[in-house]
Amino acid sequence: MSGSRPPSPPLNRPSSTRYTIPMQVPIYRYEKSAAEYARALKVIPSGIYGHQGPAEGCFVPVDAFPFFSQKAKGAHFWDVDGNRFIDYMCAYGPNVLGYNDDEVDEAAAAQRALGDCVTAPSTRMIDLAELLVDTVASADWAFFAKNGGDVTTLAVITARAHTHRKKVVFFKGYYHGVTPWTQKVDYPGILPEDVANSVYVPWNDYEALAQAFADHKGDIACVIAQPYMHGNFRDNELPAEGFWPKVRALCDEAGALLVIDDVRTGFRLDLAGSDHYFGFKADLICFCKALANGYNVSALCGREALRNTVSGLTYTGSYWLSAVPFAAALACISKMKRVGLPAVLREKGLKVTEGLKAAAARHGYRLHVSGAPALFYLRLEDPDEQAQPPGTAWTPKLALHQRWIAEMVRRGIYVTNHHNHFLNYALSDEDIALTLAAADEAFSAL
Amino acid sequence: MSGSRPPSPPLNRPSSTRYTIPMQVPIYRYEKSAAEYARALKVIPSGIYGHQGPAEGCFVPVDAFPFFSQKAKGAHFWDVDGNRFIDYMCAYGPNVLGYNDDEVDEAAAAQRALGDCVTAPSTRMIDLAELLVDTVASADWAFFAKNGGDVTTLAVITARAHTHRKKVVFFKGYYHGVTPWTQKVDYPGILPEDVANSVYVPWNDYEALAQAFADHKGDIACVIAQPYMHGNFRDNELPAEGFWPKVRALCDEAGALLVIDDVRTGFRLDLAGSDHYFGFKADLICFCKALANGYNVSALCGREALRNTVSGLTYTGSYWLSAVPFAAALACISKMKRVGLPAVLREKGLKVTEGLKAAAARHGYRLHVSGAPALFYLRLEDPDEQAQPPGTAWTPKLALHQRWIAEMVRRGIYVTNHHNHFLNYALSDEDIALTLAAADEAFSAL
Repeated sequence: MSGSRPPSPPLNRPSSTRYTIPMQVPIYRYEKSAAEYARALKVIPSGIYGHQGPAEGCFVPVDAFPFFSQKAKGAHFWDVDGNRFIDYMCAYGPNVLGYNDDEVDEAAAAQRALGDCVTAPSTRMIDLAELLVDTVASADWAFFAKNGGDVTTLAVITARAHTHRKKVVFFKGYYHGVTPWTQKVDYPGILPEDVANSVYVPWNDYEALAQAFADHKGDIACVIAQPYMHGNFRDNELPAEGFWPKVRALCDEAGALLVIDDVRTGFRLDLAGSDHYFGFKADLICFCKALANGYNVSALCGREALRNTVSGLTYTGSYWLSAVPFAAALACISKMKRVGLPAVLREKGLKVTEGLKAAAARHGYRLHVSGAPALFYLRLEDPDEQAQPPGTAWTPKLALHQRWIAEMVRRGIYVTNHHNHFLNYALSDEDIALTLAAADEAFSAL
Repeated sequence: MSGSRPPSPPLNRPSSTRYTIPMQVPIYRYEKSAAEYARALKVIPSGIYGHQGPAEGCFVPVDAFPFFSQKAKGAHFWDVDGNRFIDYMCAYGPNVLGYNDDEVDEAAAAQRALGDCVTAPSTRMIDLAELLVDTVASADWAFFAKNGGDVTTLAVITARAHTHRKKVVFFKGYYHGVTPWTQKVDYPGILPEDVANSVYVPWNDYEALAQAFADHKGDIACVIAQPYMHGNFRDNELPAEGFWPKVRALCDEAGALLVIDDVRTGFRLDLAGSDHYFGFKADLICFCKALANGYNVSALCGREALRNTVSGLTYTGSYWLSAVPFAAALACISKMKRVGLPAVLREKGLKVTEGLKAAAARHGYRLHVSGAPALFYLRLEDPDEQAQPPGTAWTPKLALHQRWIAEMVRRGIYVTNHHNHFLNYALSDEDIALTLAAADEAFSAL
């Protein structure tokens, strides 16, 4: 590719001279991306929707980011201008082994030659359910769909059907998809009825949760939660010591189900499920993103006692039994197990974040790293701004942070200003070294 | 394949002897399907869910149907016992050009080699939106997701956001997916709040619709409807003469949107949309199934006036910008246009259904065919049962029909007892001849 990166810049320069020499890392321009975006705006509302587009405040400043990719391989993607990026977003999660992983793609291609979306399903569906039951600690069965939201919605319907109760408890800062029950009452098109049975409590606040159970005694169908708070635009928060076992006990006592939304974190923390990682057992657990390395499939797994409830629901979709994503998921989970993925991603995450923190410190900045290393969240502290009081709803303005992120992206390191990151198995030590070199230059440029 | 069908039986026998010779068509057995289903039941709630499984009353009698496929090509699939079926269900719609269509698969494979689900989307998304805007009469823009239900839900949220109203009018017998707002209040896990703003009127009953608009004056956000009534377990009903233009005028007068759910019928009736086929223009139109010949993608298209409303919604999903299904959809739509798909499917549908009706008549039965020829619905009239009064809610018992369907399936003709059928472009005259020969034997066996 004409626009691909030059060889790795020298990393053995003495640190005292490191920031004075001319920039080694190219500064990217996005002329073709801009032209394509203009074309997109004519035929797609907001051009690109969701996190992957510029309309949600995700790209700040917007001219630092590429809009369209041309190709991807391993830990990298190339934009339509030919710029190569070391990708720390991984398509917001699905890329877990590296783009176009040969092992997954070969399994998928072999299934495709036989058939994908057929009137009678393939037995790959059974194989995948068996593998999930073997792999995920809280799984006695599996049900497959397409979106994370398909299975978070199924989990909530299951909880209501099983308990004959209405209320669902959410932790503030949650994200469980876009179906109306997951949205906020002040969002366009959402009705008060859609969220009439939603109860919101602060994350990690057991007393507030217990109070909600007391306030809605006998009415709570389930608590739905991500395994830790990885909301956007603020530092991520791991569960407080003893929080999850107390939540589990509270649900059991009240006869409510505990639903874990492992869509974002699933398989990156623990192949047995993020509930298992944090030492408790969910009743229902939702998987998507990392399940099949980008092939389109999601899964709800659950405990034996809920099997008949799920069997009795009206819940299906056109492509839900497609065989190619099942074959891809079988290969993806098998490889994740073989390589011991969570430990590898944790180690890579620590290397990246320790390196970034050190680079920040060398330039007189303080970089805050939160969440799990495999899904690290970054915030560059602005000396001109008051520090964020932990556990409050106060949101830092992030202006300095966003400028730094923009300098990183322009240097080929695809990071984000407001969202947790995602690591993939293909990220190499050379990629990490290039990342840290770019970080030094990005801090210099601030 | 050991279980594949023998060559076509002779069709030039004089009709007077046709039914007295020994059966030419094998009677299938499903031992491996049964064993795999037992395995599935251990790890998947109800083994296979939805229409594609035996739990919903879809397979009657259940032992006539295969449960799992081994491979598929063109108009055929083979089950795990090696039996070949001429498939009139087409995975409940996605298979529109024939399984594993080379043109679609090659376009998809070329895109896969570049990348599929990547942090920045591919420009294939723009190309597909442009092609839909060129192809679909009511489309000024397109938005992509995964399920039909993703886009019917987006349509309803859009209607509510645009009109600042709550009520949604449905035609009884509708199907718009499985999200809670589409379900019925007596379904497990569904709350009264989920359907508190649903208004139900009988299909083709303009007076009832006008009354609903009067009863909920100023409160109706939209009417959502399939282009004709293709509900299950009863004869399908095309729109009455002049019905759609009157509905369109009523919506315009009341400031309500008209949403067409073309998930099932889309592209099989008219490449410009089923609204265009029936001579009106939808405000929003939902596509899925036939869009990409089985690759997993859905689309909402709509009119210019709604673009900004959609841009302002919170609506996205993990795999929604995957490039491979976009590439497949581009190839699928291009081929559908080139071959003039709707006319071809209509002709095939008329050949099949006229042939089946004639076969029934030869055996003293009356076969009712309803709906569009490309998506024909069948009902074998039971002489022992009162005829179905048109336009009533009375449902025939279908016992004789189900026995005939079972005899067809056991002879390798995959048809269904309760759902409209789907045709695909790969269905050949030889397939149709085999179907009619099997029908003769199936009627004989009743």
